Amino acid sequence: MRATTIHAPFDMRVEDVPDPVIQEATDVLVRVVRACICGSDLWAYRGASARRPGQRIGHEFLGIVEETGAEVRDVARGDLVVAPFVWSDGTCDYCAEGLQTSCPNGGFWGSVGSDGGQGEAVRVPFADGTLVKLPADAASDDRLLTALLALSDVMGTGHHAALGAGVRKGATVAVVGDGAVGLCGVLAARRLGAERIIALGRHTARTDIARAFGATDVVAERGEAAEAAVRELTGGQGAHAVIEAVGTEQSMRTAVNITRDGGSVGHVGVPHGSHTGLDLSVMFDRNIALRGGVAPVRAYLPELLPDVLDGTIDPSPVFDLTVGLEDVPDGYRAMDERTALKVLVTP
Amino acid sequence: MRATTIHAPFDMRVEDVPDPVIQEATDVLVRVVRACICGSDLWAYRGASARRPGQRIGHEFLGIVEETGAEVRDVARGDLVVAPFVWSDGTCDYCAEGLQTSCPNGGFWGSVGSDGGQGEAVRVPFADGTLVKLPADAASDDRLLTALLALSDVMGTGHHAALGAGVRKGATVAVVGDGAVGLCGVLAARRLGAERIIALGRHTARTDIARAFGATDVVAERGEAAEAAVRELTGGQGAHAVIEAVGTEQSMRTAVNITRDGGSVGHVGVPHGSHTGLDLSVMFDRNIALRGGVAPVRAYLPELLPDVLDGTIDPSPVFDLTVGLEDVPDGYRAMDERTALKVLVTP
Repeated sequence: MRATTIHAPFDMRVEDVPDPVIQEATDVLVRVVRACICGSDLWAYRGASARRPGQRIGHEFLGIVEETGAEVRDVARGDLVVAPFVWSDGTCDYCAEGLQTSCPNGGFWGSVGSDGGQGEAVRVPFADGTLVKLPADAASDDRLLTALLALSDVMGTGHHAALGAGVRKGATVAVVGDGAVGLCGVLAARRLGAERIIALGRHTARTDIARAFGATDVVAERGEAAEAAVRELTGGQGAHAVIEAVGTEQSMRTAVNITRDGGSVGHVGVPHGSHTGLDLSVMFDRNIALRGGVAPVRAYLPELLPDVLDGTIDPSPVFDLTVGLEDVPDGYRAMDERTALKVLVTP
Repeated sequence: MRATTIHAPFDMRVEDVPDPVIQEATDVLVRVVRACICGSDLWAYRGASARRPGQRIGHEFLGIVEETGAEVRDVARGDLVVAPFVWSDGTCDYCAEGLQTSCPNGGFWGSVGSDGGQGEAVRVPFADGTLVKLPADAASDDRLLTALLALSDVMGTGHHAALGAGVRKGATVAVVGDGAVGLCGVLAARRLGAERIIALGRHTARTDIARAFGATDVVAERGEAAEAAVRELTGGQGAHAVIEAVGTEQSMRTAVNITRDGGSVGHVGVPHGSHTGLDLSVMFDRNIALRGGVAPVRAYLPELLPDVLDGTIDPSPVFDLTVGLEDVPDGYRAMDERTALKVLVTP
């Protein structure tokens, strides 16, 4: 089959790779119908995260089950399914608690030895613990398929950030990061009943989506000027709940500085940089909490899926460029140059 | 009157200072009956926190109201009262929310221009928002007075740490720090229903108190050996809830490393060191939250006071040395050399 591989920074290829086969009785094979490129894939693309030459990539996909191992019970051949960005066994303590990202048998698509989502097909380990079945008729609804694909990562991750930030009815929320996750954080915050949502971002195309997703205010400034603007919008106090969806020192510093005393930063931006930007003294003096991390999106799928199906939330606007599988390298380029927000891949 | 002053690192004096007088209609004057020395006072003592020569010190005290300003309503001359370690106006948004430590009119005993607790008397600003009345008959019960004094800081701070760590019924808790706050954290965790409480500490005198307060296990190792020991006690997973009551890089690192995935570190150790010991990548990958900070002990007094009065909790064993006011410098020396755990001052 054809699949995307990464050979070196900025060297993405679409190549022939071995067809996946069932290896364990709990595996299924999924023919990919929709995949996409994640902002976090850019860390590998830019060389900030190491990859072995030829390693697969892509951790967001939905597709049709093509073959099932003997012990698979919950999905069958022909089912339309969505995969969270990690697989998980569905039976351990962590899976039972809804922290599938800590499953000792779990793993990340595209890690060495596994298939990635940016290809024609994927061997899915622990299918019953991992995949979530979608209604068959969604397969013929292009807009809906795209919205459902967001449940593989960005929508669940935005929701995780909103929970970590402690968003609740009536809260004032600020969102640092205007990528797909930040925008989904806006959508998640609105869904959880936030009264005021302040989106930080300079790119009109993105802040327009933020407004459509529920942002009540947009702050275009950066750094200290952005902090001052958020403080002015919040009577000098800052936001109860702050979503951090970037992961750099600067974004973490901004997030802490715009949080109201006693509030929380919900962080889902993969941390980069050995210094974290966290000023623990500030957090201590002001009782600012930090919660979040890699999102257990599998846990959120049962809750978010009905809302996507009935249109209560529609994250599909975060996808603003579509490429075929052979053009995935162009998709990376577009996201790296920020000419695309998030790239949909249709193998 | 006589009061303790700090002139330089290791230079504590007890001197004549001006008698406090009512300055605002919301002030009261309190004659100090019991005060004490806090582990955090040692940062000033050792020169790690700057103080102006001659500055007052001491932020924990209880005493008798001697004079009241015209607008004071809730306490009267002759009342026995306890003071939290910060004063607060009792009327702002933060006070209403129970985050009195963020009160814009609040302040810290011993800050420049204010009285400290380690003296004969204290002018208390915003008395109605700050002080909590105690039963008059407690004044004649030496053991109870000592236990009540712990409500001015260490008991409420231990409780704050336990809440930040997310201690709940049945939880496994680990406590980093064998000082008075860590020990009160053990007591708070037991009070909140923790099933297993692992105290980290090497000093038998202290770990004996930890056991008396409810610790089910004691880990005497330090650093990585301590982490391994906690992991062994918890089936390799770590503790759901970890109380960090030291504030150094090493203690913060230990706290994070012994937290179970998805758990929380409740930190109340005043942070020292520009590098914080926080490995944000570890916290991210394992969804470990950090909550806590300077404890709003005023908010906890109404909840904790009845339990101290009826003996449900008795933090008094954390005081293991008593000095008169003139001997406060000896008390500092004893705590600095760790020959005393926490020093009670009887002016």
